[in-house]
Amino acid sequence: MPRIVGLDVLDIRFPTSRELDGSDAMNPDPDYSAAYVVLRTDDGPFGYGFAFTIGRGNDVQAAAIRALGSMVVGRPVPDTAGALAALSRDLVGDSQLRWLGPEKGVAHMAIGAVVNAAWDLAARRADSPLWSFLAAMSPEEIVGLVDFRYLTDALTEAEALAILRAAAPGRASRAAHLRAAGYRAYSTSAGWLGYSDEKLVRLAKQAVADGFDMIKLKVGAAIDDDVRRLRLVRSAVGPEVRIAVDANQRWDVGPAIEWMRALAPYDPYWIEEPTSPDDVLGHRAIAEAVAPIRVATGEHVQNRVVFKQLLAAGALSVLQLDAARVGGVNENVAILLLAAKFGVPVCPHAGGVGLCELVRHLAMFDYVAVSGTDDGRVIEWVDHLHEHFTDPAVVRGGRYLAPTRPGFSARIRDESLERYAFPDGPEWRLT
Amino acid sequence: MPRIVGLDVLDIRFPTSRELDGSDAMNPDPDYSAAYVVLRTDDGPFGYGFAFTIGRGNDVQAAAIRALGSMVVGRPVPDTAGALAALSRDLVGDSQLRWLGPEKGVAHMAIGAVVNAAWDLAARRADSPLWSFLAAMSPEEIVGLVDFRYLTDALTEAEALAILRAAAPGRASRAAHLRAAGYRAYSTSAGWLGYSDEKLVRLAKQAVADGFDMIKLKVGAAIDDDVRRLRLVRSAVGPEVRIAVDANQRWDVGPAIEWMRALAPYDPYWIEEPTSPDDVLGHRAIAEAVAPIRVATGEHVQNRVVFKQLLAAGALSVLQLDAARVGGVNENVAILLLAAKFGVPVCPHAGGVGLCELVRHLAMFDYVAVSGTDDGRVIEWVDHLHEHFTDPAVVRGGRYLAPTRPGFSARIRDESLERYAFPDGPEWRLT
Repeated sequence: MPRIVGLDVLDIRFPTSRELDGSDAMNPDPDYSAAYVVLRTDDGPFGYGFAFTIGRGNDVQAAAIRALGSMVVGRPVPDTAGALAALSRDLVGDSQLRWLGPEKGVAHMAIGAVVNAAWDLAARRADSPLWSFLAAMSPEEIVGLVDFRYLTDALTEAEALAILRAAAPGRASRAAHLRAAGYRAYSTSAGWLGYSDEKLVRLAKQAVADGFDMIKLKVGAAIDDDVRRLRLVRSAVGPEVRIAVDANQRWDVGPAIEWMRALAPYDPYWIEEPTSPDDVLGHRAIAEAVAPIRVATGEHVQNRVVFKQLLAAGALSVLQLDAARVGGVNENVAILLLAAKFGVPVCPHAGGVGLCELVRHLAMFDYVAVSGTDDGRVIEWVDHLHEHFTDPAVVRGGRYLAPTRPGFSARIRDESLERYAFPDGPEWRLT
Repeated sequence: MPRIVGLDVLDIRFPTSRELDGSDAMNPDPDYSAAYVVLRTDDGPFGYGFAFTIGRGNDVQAAAIRALGSMVVGRPVPDTAGALAALSRDLVGDSQLRWLGPEKGVAHMAIGAVVNAAWDLAARRADSPLWSFLAAMSPEEIVGLVDFRYLTDALTEAEALAILRAAAPGRASRAAHLRAAGYRAYSTSAGWLGYSDEKLVRLAKQAVADGFDMIKLKVGAAIDDDVRRLRLVRSAVGPEVRIAVDANQRWDVGPAIEWMRALAPYDPYWIEEPTSPDDVLGHRAIAEAVAPIRVATGEHVQNRVVFKQLLAAGALSVLQLDAARVGGVNENVAILLLAAKFGVPVCPHAGGVGLCELVRHLAMFDYVAVSGTDDGRVIEWVDHLHEHFTDPAVVRGGRYLAPTRPGFSARIRDESLERYAFPDGPEWRLT
């Protein structure tokens, strides 16, 4: 029986702030970073995962992952649904570490990184891409992955099982469709706040020419600028292209409503992160006031308990699952099931570094085995930093191709690990 | 102008799990710990603060505090309301570190430790205990301490100012009352889950004999045991003593309601932490179902945004402010103002290590300058680990004495720092 014999953690940072790629109203100068974890085994492949941060503090995130080492090293490689459920439960349930969250922030993202690495390892051993490894499990096995604590007032085990069983008959045909046609993407690459009007319009037109029927703009710093930018882009791409806007938590409830009323004439498709990701009731107030504009959030939503409330309160109409914020695949399965229960489409957050690589697996698993539909669903695409991954995300004609290589696609190339190591890699020593 | 010239962080752990002191349904074996920070200055006193954890992970918490060093070291000592507001704003607002929360978990508790140490320093320099240092500020200065971001739909700056101005005329007489009579306490020392029935009853009677008119029992592991324990204690102390019960987040919404119906015949005063601290809507559902039993929570409530919602939703009737969970004094001033706005009494969470020392200052400031009343208010008291502090909390006849020594009382004795240093102090090398 192969065992996990080591947990290595690396602090990897990409100097993205130099070009203002990724700039938005709340994050003016991110250096996209990974607190990167390698699960070493004594036989067969290793497992790879990471927590995503935007620069400073990536060392703290790395320390939090390292603190989980003694709970992981020495275990038999978890390669069944039951063993992967037990690993997640043990990490989330440690009674002393739980105080650091519970189930939120640095400590929870650390768990997510390790759990995701274990899933990467299991899928590699099964010689299957994660999405199809997951989608090959029985409804009972999938339900067994989920921690229903704090969920049962909104979603019971029996309801989850019913959702999965209803989707089971169509799994094979949907998987075949994915392999043939991929999954719809939208592009955020045009709309960073640090870009000039000219660059914004040029990139928006380019995105449409490349096959995207939806793009996203960052907003939230100055209302007049946002109205001008949205007007320019709307007139450049025409009425048929969907344009989402993203405020990155800049507003209080009142200003969010006011701002969206000013942008409404240009038909924004959704408003993303209008306010604090912790503010369930605030999102509900905004959703009621700005309808029919959709409210979207999720990249900073800390765990399934907050998603449960956002859904139950009717506070969001688009759920933006994130692969590296919550406690890993297990908790994201819970979140997909919650979204299916409430009939809300999941449109994952991506970008950053490696998030496109990861979330495509989760969206495709959702399509094949959970919601059973791609209606109203679309995965964010930012064409950035993919070259550092051994199994990079690929988008063609506005659609994500289905991954075919084994694992969760989290592995970063050895050359990149060396070059972008912080603070001693050559990329950082030069600065 | 004196400056901060160093930020030292120590990992201090007390082996409390050896005696089952502090055992509850969620935390069976805590080792109460402090990620302890010293702000060194080049002139005058130093400042002391800490984040409280329960053992494993205290090193991660210490790393998160250390990561803030470069933002603090080199600053002039912040000794005015304006400078203390600026420090808090800078730490909370760092755009890269913000990703690690935002404003929650390890990263936010680290900010709280540093902000609290800065307040300790400022109060020492003013030669005043923190509660009266704060209560000597003008309403305008106090409002200036608060970050109103995400609060304005529930509490505006103007409303906060009106609350403080209304309380201003009675400040001097209430401060005099505190100095003479102290502040009401309740005792948790009797009710740890790991104690036998005999020990529970004996300690409950002892608490009443010592002058407490309120005690608290841990519940949540097994319903029959809880009914038996509450019945025994109720019959031991009689109908006049208030008995609160505390489930430490063990339940889902349904079981919480069921459990409290079983305990209701023994007249519990409040149910504390019935479910996830993230579940605003869950707390509301429980509050509606178990009324007139009060719902209390706060020790794990991550920030002012969640408190805002709990208050606005009518989900809690007792707000259990914690000194070391949120972003320090500044955010706790916001929370006190929110509670005053909604007319909910603040009954701070204490115990652990050092929490009694800290929260008494905040409750007394609330009484003198914010709510202006002690009606329905009471501070938790656990008679444990106070000997390690240079300015320990003292309770006599069921009342906290008003602190008289300068600072926020966060300083741990040098001998204790040496003995309980983890993992190399003599207390840990022996194990």
